[in-house]
Amino acid sequence: MPDPIILGTIGLDDVKTPFGEVKSALGGSSVYSSIAASFFSEPGIIAPAGQDLPKDYEDFLKSRGISLKGVVKKGKNFRWQGYYEYDMNEAKTINTELNSLADFDPKIPEEYKKAKFVFLANIDPEIQIKVLKQVEDPKFVMIDSMNFWIEIKREKLLEAMSKADAILLNEGEARMLFKTPSLVKAGRQMLDLGVRYAIIKKGEHGSLLFSDNSYFSAPGYPLEDVVDPTGAGDSFAGAIIGYLSKTQDISEKNMRKAIVYGSTIASFNAEGFSVNNLKTLTMQKIEKRFEEFRDLGDF
Amino acid sequence: MPDPIILGTIGLDDVKTPFGEVKSALGGSSVYSSIAASFFSEPGIIAPAGQDLPKDYEDFLKSRGISLKGVVKKGKNFRWQGYYEYDMNEAKTINTELNSLADFDPKIPEEYKKAKFVFLANIDPEIQIKVLKQVEDPKFVMIDSMNFWIEIKREKLLEAMSKADAILLNEGEARMLFKTPSLVKAGRQMLDLGVRYAIIKKGEHGSLLFSDNSYFSAPGYPLEDVVDPTGAGDSFAGAIIGYLSKTQDISEKNMRKAIVYGSTIASFNAEGFSVNNLKTLTMQKIEKRFEEFRDLGDF
Repeated sequence: MPDPIILGTIGLDDVKTPFGEVKSALGGSSVYSSIAASFFSEPGIIAPAGQDLPKDYEDFLKSRGISLKGVVKKGKNFRWQGYYEYDMNEAKTINTELNSLADFDPKIPEEYKKAKFVFLANIDPEIQIKVLKQVEDPKFVMIDSMNFWIEIKREKLLEAMSKADAILLNEGEARMLFKTPSLVKAGRQMLDLGVRYAIIKKGEHGSLLFSDNSYFSAPGYPLEDVVDPTGAGDSFAGAIIGYLSKTQDISEKNMRKAIVYGSTIASFNAEGFSVNNLKTLTMQKIEKRFEEFRDLGDF
Repeated sequence: MPDPIILGTIGLDDVKTPFGEVKSALGGSSVYSSIAASFFSEPGIIAPAGQDLPKDYEDFLKSRGISLKGVVKKGKNFRWQGYYEYDMNEAKTINTELNSLADFDPKIPEEYKKAKFVFLANIDPEIQIKVLKQVEDPKFVMIDSMNFWIEIKREKLLEAMSKADAILLNEGEARMLFKTPSLVKAGRQMLDLGVRYAIIKKGEHGSLLFSDNSYFSAPGYPLEDVVDPTGAGDSFAGAIIGYLSKTQDISEKNMRKAIVYGSTIASFNAEGFSVNNLKTLTMQKIEKRFEEFRDLGDF
């Protein structure tokens, strides 16, 4: 039985950065996060895909022990074209083709319904709610989103978020959703939606974890060159849900560790284009960098 | 004998933030940093001031054990008028009156010349060089600057920096000085100037310490409301130089502690207007918050 299950997109991405470019590369929120999760557990993907999704992309995901039973293939695949300039923190979109994403109406496979750990990656909040309804008795649900949904479906998004145990947003989105420049206030307001954890991703500045009685600040890993930041947020999230599913421990203490594993895998991801760097990543490298994180903040 | 000695400005500030405003309040880089340093040691100020500097401001500084022997009074005091909007990270300047700062030609008092710890706070780099020449055998020199000097006196500033042991810049200034979006690259280039430590201040995101073989990331303290960020960077720096002077230990390990003391005092400073919050601050409160910093990054 796959656990965690991950709802999101499968993408074919054209990406250009100051370090080079790739075309029709494997991407999408469910892809990055399930690969990251697969270092700890056996995730299952819920996502629309196109008939044109290359077979070797599917084979690679299967080779990582990822279930594709929840992938619905129809028509052409979702495509994203984007680039990064001088400031690698911000992706610029050239073009988005929704294709198979446009009318995705998820029916999750029987064997996914008993999953205990669920990650609702960035996608229409109505789809996030629909998927969550089909999971029988989830133990821990984490939800992500983006500025697009905050703008056009704010109320639906808040409804979806209030059904989760953890909300994940990047700093710009958190400020935007709660109309405040203060990340501390935004974090508290995320908690006020009734969730146990609020996580704010800050790119090179690391991340913040808020819970009722505590506050945790994880540093960013000091990368001299970010080759391609695409998917860093999703691999961060995937590692978190994968590690929680593996350890079956959602305490605040274990959540801190999960977040550092998330930062670790996200930093490797950003050192290569598409999912390339995750292909050769090993648990040994992950554990080594995880330990480096301890020294980064030690005083 | 005062140690550390601190070169900088004494200001009369009009500041407005979303939380209120103050007029002709005590400010300036040497003031914030010497007050912060005074929690650990007995600093001496080198700065120009005006005849109109209120006596109770001087009395307050003296009451903190700060030497004002290096203060030269002449004409009218330096004045800064500024405000902060929604985004409290950026000060907007309405008006600057240089006054006594315009033709400041520092001759440091005899008893300052044997100081071992020196902080050259933000001021014209030519003045920074002039002051440093008068110190007989400094053990540790830290230097700060700002975008204004990077723009108009870049070469002189690089010369001044190369004479120091530690360079301190905020993230925008570091990116600007070395024309790179990467803080890691900027930090390395600061070290390439021949200094032992490079420190990058990131406001609410904390700070980074670079040295040849190590990297330290200090978290920001989670303040729900920043009342007035004026002087946060200077009180951060002052606490560092004050703590180093007290402990006489410039090892990387002790530098990390110094930085966390800096973050601690800067966070208290930002919770009130002008130097108001520093007036009632105690070592007990400082030690308590210093310990909280350990928990912030613990996993």
